[in-house]
Amino acid sequence: MQFNEIVEKLKEGQSGVVDFKIKNNPAILTAASLEKAKENDITFLDTNSPLNLKNLIKTSEASALLLPANDNYVYEIVKKIAVDWILLKDPKIAFAETLDFLYPSEIESEGIHKSAVIGENVKIGLGVSIGANACIGDNTEIGAGTIVHAGVVVYKNVRIGAKNLIHANSVIHSGSTLGDECVINANAVIGGEGFGFVPTSYGWKKMPQVGIVILKNKVEVGSGSTIDRPSVGKTIIGEDTKIDNLVQIGHGVTTGKGCAMAAQVGIAGGAEIGDGVILAGQVGVSNKVKVGDRVIASSKTGIVSNIEAGKVVSGFPAIPNKLWLRCSANFKKLPEMAKAIRQLDRRNSR
Amino acid sequence: MQFNEIVEKLKEGQSGVVDFKIKNNPAILTAASLEKAKENDITFLDTNSPLNLKNLIKTSEASALLLPANDNYVYEIVKKIAVDWILLKDPKIAFAETLDFLYPSEIESEGIHKSAVIGENVKIGLGVSIGANACIGDNTEIGAGTIVHAGVVVYKNVRIGAKNLIHANSVIHSGSTLGDECVINANAVIGGEGFGFVPTSYGWKKMPQVGIVILKNKVEVGSGSTIDRPSVGKTIIGEDTKIDNLVQIGHGVTTGKGCAMAAQVGIAGGAEIGDGVILAGQVGVSNKVKVGDRVIASSKTGIVSNIEAGKVVSGFPAIPNKLWLRCSANFKKLPEMAKAIRQLDRRNSR
Amino acid sequence: MQFNEIVEKLKEGQSGVVDFKIKNNPAILTAASLEKAKENDITFLDTNSPLNLKNLIKTSEASALLLPANDNYVYEIVKKIAVDWILLKDPKIAFAETLDFLYPSEIESEGIHKSAVIGENVKIGLGVSIGANACIGDNTEIGAGTIVHAGVVVYKNVRIGAKNLIHANSVIHSGSTLGDECVINANAVIGGEGFGFVPTSYGWKKMPQVGIVILKNKVEVGSGSTIDRPSVGKTIIGEDTKIDNLVQIGHGVTTGKGCAMAAQVGIAGGAEIGDGVILAGQVGVSNKVKVGDRVIASSKTGIVSNIEAGKVVSGFPAIPNKLWLRCSANFKKLPEMAKAIRQLDRRNSR
Repeated sequence: MQFNEIVEKLKEGQSGVVDFKIKNNPAILTAASLEKAKENDITFLDTNSPLNLKNLIKTSEASALLLPANDNYVYEIVKKIAVDWILLKDPKIAFAETLDFLYPSEIESEGIHKSAVIGENVKIGLGVSIGANACIGDNTEIGAGTIVHAGVVVYKNVRIGAKNLIHANSVIHSGSTLGDECVINANAVIGGEGFGFVPTSYGWKKMPQVGIVILKNKVEVGSGSTIDRPSVGKTIIGEDTKIDNLVQIGHGVTTGKGCAMAAQVGIAGGAEIGDGVILAGQVGVSNKVKVGDRVIASSKTGIVSNIEAGKVVSGFPAIPNKLWLRCSANFKKLPEMAKAIRQLDRRNSR
Repeated sequence: MQFNEIVEKLKEGQSGVVDFKIKNNPAILTAASLEKAKENDITFLDTNSPLNLKNLIKTSEASALLLPANDNYVYEIVKKIAVDWILLKDPKIAFAETLDFLYPSEIESEGIHKSAVIGENVKIGLGVSIGANACIGDNTEIGAGTIVHAGVVVYKNVRIGAKNLIHANSVIHSGSTLGDECVINANAVIGGEGFGFVPTSYGWKKMPQVGIVILKNKVEVGSGSTIDRPSVGKTIIGEDTKIDNLVQIGHGVTTGKGCAMAAQVGIAGGAEIGDGVILAGQVGVSNKVKVGDRVIASSKTGIVSNIEAGKVVSGFPAIPNKLWLRCSANFKKLPEMAKAIRQLDRRNSR
Repeated sequence: MQFNEIVEKLKEGQSGVVDFKIKNNPAILTAASLEKAKENDITFLDTNSPLNLKNLIKTSEASALLLPANDNYVYEIVKKIAVDWILLKDPKIAFAETLDFLYPSEIESEGIHKSAVIGENVKIGLGVSIGANACIGDNTEIGAGTIVHAGVVVYKNVRIGAKNLIHANSVIHSGSTLGDECVINANAVIGGEGFGFVPTSYGWKKMPQVGIVILKNKVEVGSGSTIDRPSVGKTIIGEDTKIDNLVQIGHGVTTGKGCAMAAQVGIAGGAEIGDGVILAGQVGVSNKVKVGDRVIASSKTGIVSNIEAGKVVSGFPAIPNKLWLRCSANFKKLPEMAKAIRQLDRRNSR
């Protein structure tokens, strides 16, 4: 693809083209990071990048640059360099869009593989692809354009919307409902039995888990992640919520729209997560806790009680992030503090 | 099912019916939580619920209530409400039993699917069901009434008892032994190779892992959880021990009876866990550590040394829970404490 | 196998035979731990074992002992005991080698199972075994002697070297490259889509993940672990690096040679891990952080900024291990410290 074609395509996108220079109009064959880009590569510099990254623009071997507009430091550099560039309101979105142009998705409907096992009374939409050795249970519906990869097991009575992408060997249990444009990555498990056992004098009594899991539109679930169904009612993942790998979502959890949960997050049963919540890696949320809209929790945070909307929290138990940073800085000084107290005590008791 | 039928059935169960009122004798079609119950629903209030939940009894739209006996506050309410109710020693057990009545398990033997691959010299008991594309290795035994779902891979020389439920795409390695009435959830891995490597001058030397994993009766293993076999000897999960999703049990671990391990717990190699131990989410136990009977560890606890029976522990490294709560409360005050020390120091050095 | 045969074989190995006693020359049938060994078992005592383990030599029922040379305490015992023994520079390596002799691997090529689904233009080396219901995508190469177990899904355009062992139901995505002698354990996912989403005014915009994952020779990946591919470029796991179960390796991570990552470690996108790094269970590494060669992080450590080569770190945020031990010891005293400060304050303000 020639560079001027990329300029034209980006103008139609969401990244906000502000200015550009087409001089060499190079052929753009691949994309790469700023550190590793070579000839015929396009690369980008994110808004608010540190100075050492900005300076890489001067020496990059890339043939084209996607750069932040409204950055004087960057602007001074681009005036002097030979390579072609585009200034953008959001160069990261421009890079994402460019990857879409340069590497069009290879996903194509391949129909229903002859080794797939399809149950009774299954409704399959137009253009659905079902991979080798996949199993689709009775009374299940799969919407138009959905791709089910090899080895996927869908139990009975599942409703899967349109244009979903369901990767190999993932499992979707009975009663689960997926909206449209969801992505279920490999080996994820949707709708497994919630962990509910009641202690009795004769051992654990299982609380039957007869509820269901609902994934709204555009939900993505990472490889190996697990989302459990509840004893009664629903586990609901809100629209456009993105879940990374090896995340556990307990029975009866509800999340709002547009959340992001990084790898190895665990959310215990019945927790209520608001809209736009961001949980970094290895965060834990205790059962039945309410996490308000737009809360951000940094990595390894343990949220054990309700958090108000908009708060940024850290630590275990979670406290405001800024306070936690100061506390952590002092944690390192505990031995000195203890020594100082002992000395003060000695002096005072003289 | 009519409400009076539920009363009769609960009388034969373990929940301890103390009193009941049958006046409307409604048809009970479904079960729901106290917050969400509607007409024709049955719901329950757990013993020792907070006051805001107890007050929901007054306004619940449920048609029938399972309530704790010996609770004066609840008793005053039930005298005034129109809806039918049962007072019970353990309303949560009653709710679990009611779910069993209302939603009888759909599991039924479907025989051996024609696409399943069965090895040589496999013994299959009466009423066993083996799902589509499942693979059963040579010399394996599967006891009567066990259900093996689609895509499960059982290696060679595995012994699986009666009435097990093995969900889709889980994997059971050679030599593993399962008792009766176990549940293996989707994508769990039983008997994988323990993580044993010896450092040498020419790199890591693998310690061969020739031991096996034994799951006693009524063990349940969550979706995506992994239980490793040891280099020599056995990894043993005791009877009625319940393991949630994404839990790692290292090589050579032994657990007692009736334990519960919440999601994302990790137990390192050779740890010995007693009877009735409860580990909350994301707890870690270091290798070869002994955890006594009935120990409870709250979420994210890191157990790095032996814990005596009956202790409740928290934090990392684990300390008594009550001490940890006080220490955590003070952690938030570290900046103030540091400031106070500095001020005292200045005053004292004048 | 007779004991004298083991002596002869170990002489040819890497464990450094220093001395031995062949008197009974017992038949060695199995291997066991020092605590559990019985007649006809061989067992070992590791270098630098605690005294209580050393004393077990006196009472062990094992028929043969692999023991550390250059240990006076052990040497005094072996002079008096009746059982046969070998003194070694590294008895743990000797035990690993002995397990190799006693339990020769059962892995044998079984050819390509008739239920396996092989795509177009797949190159399969000599002696490759492909298990039941495995799926191999178009244009994939599988090197000589590689064993692919049942239910494995390999997407298109994957290059797998020689003598790899790929366990059941694991998934390898398009473009991934595996060297030789790698082990992929059950339900692991190699090359899944990195977690990259750009916030926009209309929700999350997916950053396409068009990079690939490269596993160098002798890499091992535990059950259920996930290694993501990046948006551009490569995620690289260095030669001889060993990864335990349920580990998450984010997009664009690179690791050096000979690292070991214990269960439930999570490494966020773009982190650079040096050679010989050891991360204990549940450690987290933040994105783009650089961890120097031979760094050791104890369990649950959170590495949020660069760590110099050779450091031993602990805690969250990570600090030097020795400092962390002292800080943790003082953490337990926080309530007393707070009280002491209050008392000092009262006295000083009189």
